[in-house]
Amino acid sequence: MFNTHTIPIRVRYTEVDSMGYLHHSRHLQYFEMGRIELLRAHGISYADLEREGVFFVVVKVAVNYKAPARYDDELTLTTKIARQTPVRIDHTYELLKGKTLVADGSTTIACVGRDGQLRAIPELLQGHGES
Amino acid sequence: MFNTHTIPIRVRYTEVDSMGYLHHSRHLQYFEMGRIELLRAHGISYADLEREGVFFVVVKVAVNYKAPARYDDELTLTTKIARQTPVRIDHTYELLKGKTLVADGSTTIACVGRDGQLRAIPELLQGHGES
Amino acid sequence: MFNTHTIPIRVRYTEVDSMGYLHHSRHLQYFEMGRIELLRAHGISYADLEREGVFFVVVKVAVNYKAPARYDDELTLTTKIARQTPVRIDHTYELLKGKTLVADGSTTIACVGRDGQLRAIPELLQGHGES
Amino acid sequence: MFNTHTIPIRVRYTEVDSMGYLHHSRHLQYFEMGRIELLRAHGISYADLEREGVFFVVVKVAVNYKAPARYDDELTLTTKIARQTPVRIDHTYELLKGKTLVADGSTTIACVGRDGQLRAIPELLQGHGES
Repeated sequence: MFNTHTIPIRVRYTEVDSMGYLHHSRHLQYFEMGRIELLRAHGISYADLEREGVFFVVVKVAVNYKAPARYDDELTLTTKIARQTPVRIDHTYELLKGKTLVADGSTTIACVGRDGQLRAIPELLQGHGES
Repeated sequence: MFNTHTIPIRVRYTEVDSMGYLHHSRHLQYFEMGRIELLRAHGISYADLEREGVFFVVVKVAVNYKAPARYDDELTLTTKIARQTPVRIDHTYELLKGKTLVADGSTTIACVGRDGQLRAIPELLQGHGES
Repeated sequence: MFNTHTIPIRVRYTEVDSMGYLHHSRHLQYFEMGRIELLRAHGISYADLEREGVFFVVVKVAVNYKAPARYDDELTLTTKIARQTPVRIDHTYELLKGKTLVADGSTTIACVGRDGQLRAIPELLQGHGES
Repeated sequence: MFNTHTIPIRVRYTEVDSMGYLHHSRHLQYFEMGRIELLRAHGISYADLEREGVFFVVVKVAVNYKAPARYDDELTLTTKIARQTPVRIDHTYELLKGKTLVADGSTTIACVGRDGQLRAIPELLQGHGES
């Protein structure tokens, strides 16, 4: 349970394309919001981590777009930690509009230091992976 | 040969994140630029297609991020048609900085009409798929 | 009263710059949200207007930035119609964080048809200007 | 002469709105590119300044939009230092498409430290203001 977090996201006007659909690159920004809010649900601020030299870089993404979302739609995004190693975290995502699946996806993020080199995920973030 | 097209892309300041790296959602916007320029290399304007009620929606994306790109880096993106059916086109992408692979990826796009329903890809765009 | 409308806006992670501050170009996107919501408070959908060939183009903006806004700040934006002519509307804006003024600004928008030429603002939108 | 710098900017697909026009918030991002390139023409890297704790925040902008720019238009932006005080720089901008004025504008930026407090503009950047 603690590895899953759901947030509401309202589609903004500047996020839709010339057809009036949520642009497909925005889903990645929503997933990022999901990860940040999942951290915060554990009392961890991503901004604080960055100040301490802990960064997460995205190494892999996959998205399946199932249904369009439009300006002003109220969506819900569920973010889940699927797997965690000492340096990486795999998340999965479900973006819904009511009961309709708008998109699902997955990402792998890796922990790096200020120098961009891989480093261990801080202990504070350990133990969230046994879903 | 005709199914492959390469363009230069310079990373803009507004596209980098707080680490100074190209934000991972931007790669999808670059891939979109690649598709549009590949069409144009065939003398086809995406804006014209839209005016005639021919739209392409993205149904699937996958990206592997291999190396960071930074503000002002001059990248080259190669876009290739990997497969084409009557209603869908699969593209693959390689984003390079010099000889370094920054990212590779793939997308599936589907042809829809103004109503958002699947429709046949116009003949004009047929026959580009036999790579 | 009917010419003024206030909405909440939460600052998203992708909207902040490398200092962690809301990027100054985002304020214009927020103002646009304010105008769209002011219309909606009158029961008018901007998307519907566009479908009928009524567009508004921005011809002038001015913004004064007074205090930074940061990721996740909950702001309130008040949008006001300051003046309306047969073809133009002037709005003013106040963006607050609690009682602190984050920014104020003004815009002039003009009504154009599908051809981009000036046209009269539809009657439906008349009479909102006597503030 | 040294206070003026001109760069080419090509309008990207993701920068246009549902009418196919360059979105009015993008002009501020272009102006930012102009300022950064003007610095670079003096051999100064904005990224380096930031690493040394020198930041510039925008305190005021004004833009007049004169003509639409569309996807793939090749524009030229001329950025000029109009005035400089110990802590502030005023720039003016002209964005052209061929000989047509797309937009002009002005900004005031202020120099701040990592703490967000006003600080003197580094000497390195002094003396560019006597236009």
